[in-house]
Amino acid sequence: METTGKVIKCRAAISWETGKPFSIEEVEVPAPKAHEIRVKIAATGICGTDEHALHGYFSNIEFPIILGHEAAGIVESVGEGVTSVKPGDKVIPLFMPQCGECVCCQNPNTNLCLNYSADKPRSPEDKKITFTCKGKQIHRMASISTFSEYTILQESACAKIDAKAPLDKVCLIGCGFSTGYGSAVNIAKVQPGSTCAVFGLGGVGLSVLIGCKVAGAARIIGVDINKTKFAKAKELGATDCISPQDNDKPIHEVLTEMTNGGVHYSFECIGQTDSMIEALKSSHSGYGTTVIVGVAPFTDKMALDPMLLTTGRTLKGALFGGWKGKTCVPKLVSDSMAKKFNLDKLVTHTLPFEKINEGFELLRAGKSIRTILIF
Amino acid sequence: METTGKVIKCRAAISWETGKPFSIEEVEVPAPKAHEIRVKIAATGICGTDEHALHGYFSNIEFPIILGHEAAGIVESVGEGVTSVKPGDKVIPLFMPQCGECVCCQNPNTNLCLNYSADKPRSPEDKKITFTCKGKQIHRMASISTFSEYTILQESACAKIDAKAPLDKVCLIGCGFSTGYGSAVNIAKVQPGSTCAVFGLGGVGLSVLIGCKVAGAARIIGVDINKTKFAKAKELGATDCISPQDNDKPIHEVLTEMTNGGVHYSFECIGQTDSMIEALKSSHSGYGTTVIVGVAPFTDKMALDPMLLTTGRTLKGALFGGWKGKTCVPKLVSDSMAKKFNLDKLVTHTLPFEKINEGFELLRAGKSIRTILIF
Repeated sequence: METTGKVIKCRAAISWETGKPFSIEEVEVPAPKAHEIRVKIAATGICGTDEHALHGYFSNIEFPIILGHEAAGIVESVGEGVTSVKPGDKVIPLFMPQCGECVCCQNPNTNLCLNYSADKPRSPEDKKITFTCKGKQIHRMASISTFSEYTILQESACAKIDAKAPLDKVCLIGCGFSTGYGSAVNIAKVQPGSTCAVFGLGGVGLSVLIGCKVAGAARIIGVDINKTKFAKAKELGATDCISPQDNDKPIHEVLTEMTNGGVHYSFECIGQTDSMIEALKSSHSGYGTTVIVGVAPFTDKMALDPMLLTTGRTLKGALFGGWKGKTCVPKLVSDSMAKKFNLDKLVTHTLPFEKINEGFELLRAGKSIRTILIF
Repeated sequence: METTGKVIKCRAAISWETGKPFSIEEVEVPAPKAHEIRVKIAATGICGTDEHALHGYFSNIEFPIILGHEAAGIVESVGEGVTSVKPGDKVIPLFMPQCGECVCCQNPNTNLCLNYSADKPRSPEDKKITFTCKGKQIHRMASISTFSEYTILQESACAKIDAKAPLDKVCLIGCGFSTGYGSAVNIAKVQPGSTCAVFGLGGVGLSVLIGCKVAGAARIIGVDINKTKFAKAKELGATDCISPQDNDKPIHEVLTEMTNGGVHYSFECIGQTDSMIEALKSSHSGYGTTVIVGVAPFTDKMALDPMLLTTGRTLKGALFGGWKGKTCVPKLVSDSMAKKFNLDKLVTHTLPFEKINEGFELLRAGKSIRTILIF
């Protein structure tokens, strides 16, 4: 790393083109302007959403880009007017910001800050932040781009956390863990004694499972075609695990029979519209709730029979598990340090940042739950 | 009407074939068996769902059939073991029964009795009830078939109501009013000060509107292509009424602009999957709730972008507005008699039963809200 004036030159993983391997390059990261924070990333997780973004699933991803959105780091410097953190503070970048001022931030029932950029073009503020590499301007993912040794955050997208937090673990609170756990406890509001089905047993699905267990679910059924994930799911609280490939009939029929009519709560953590319909059909008529956690390719639509709803089911979703980031992330970090839940179980691989392509191969092969890249 | 032994011969409107006019015929209605009640229908409303059933929108409708499912009447006789009513009691037939014993009846959060037949084949119990006409067996709608001077109800599908209730008005509580009103107060749980949009200003939509107003909504926007319905909607509490045909852009964009980002609650009361998507898009990201009230043709699917949910919207539905019939219908009748809401406003036409085809023509022409047929 070399500091030139206020610009930092550092390593980053550039995605030059859709679907191509990451290229570790030297990039220039500008100094933080007013209300911006420059953070040295310590650890960043590899999330399925990065893989989806790399393959062009989302309309708002432009190449070349620095992906990555699940991380933890330390504040390097701050721009004018920043009051919530100072250099040296440990922080988690927030792909779902909390501006505190929009109609959603002022509503206690949602975490969806209207300044988020998860499914829309980069904001004008974000476009002013210009990373460059080999003379080319590099786009950013979700206004945070954590596959870079240094990155710039707007103050609304930066949560200060406990100074003793282990960054190589709590980075998971930046996306996967919080998204899954919150989908169970905040969005579905899983009740004690209930029955749950979790479709997809990756990092997010397992975090849903942790949330269901913490909430007191009596029965938690994991669903995945990759049966190597069943042991971990059972370790984390799944009472049953089933594979669609082991059954001749649609998996919702299997679940309906297993549960005498359907589950109280089902969660789709894959990002496939067909699985979303299966999850909905798996929930009990009259009172079942299905939470869409996975993010599907932006052109895909669910072919939804409205009678599934009219017969009393609820379908909902959220980003980042319903947590208001600046308010709730520090508490989630404290809860993890107090062992309310165990993030260690989700981390299957830890690799140096340079091995990012190896980390993605593990994901594609279904061999990892979460791989953490360390700078 | 002629009583032969225990069989009653009486008038009924037979639908011999899909889409054909009703034919007033003499039918034989059997005596009530154990746990059955024979009711003399006093008044029955014409609901859009009857029109949809006539045109084959639902998979469980078989011809020839006696349609009709929104009515009020007087108990004529009861079968063995019936304890909740006696001859002479005023009652409302329930297309959504309340058996009291199924897992849903025992759940306070749903009214969906698992013995309902709204979207599935007639139950074995219902099939034992054999109406005949000209030697042919006649099918029944939703286990109640109220387009008949006499009908048979299972005890779980019969709500006893106040002896002073005006049957020619409270018949609306048998379907349209309760479905709409309950969708607002039970399913959406409309909050004081909120903004609502109601798609479709027929009897059900206007009843949603009444529910939104009773719940204290600050702004209620009616949406219909039939602008002759706007005056009534405004009389019942709509603050604005708009027609998609007056606008060049999709109606959700118009609503989003009118409400600074979307409504708190939207209701689809038409039964069109495209309108359901428009209603969902009209709700605000983060906290909007859309209730599917209308029933679409059974082959139609919503083409749903799951990102609409992931960005924090909720999509749900219910039949009969979430009311447990035997428990809640008597209370709704009392509330109407106490003028908590005014059913009179929904009744635009009252006709003798024989003029049933005229009543359906009024519906098709968009000239009626509710037509009540009197025996």
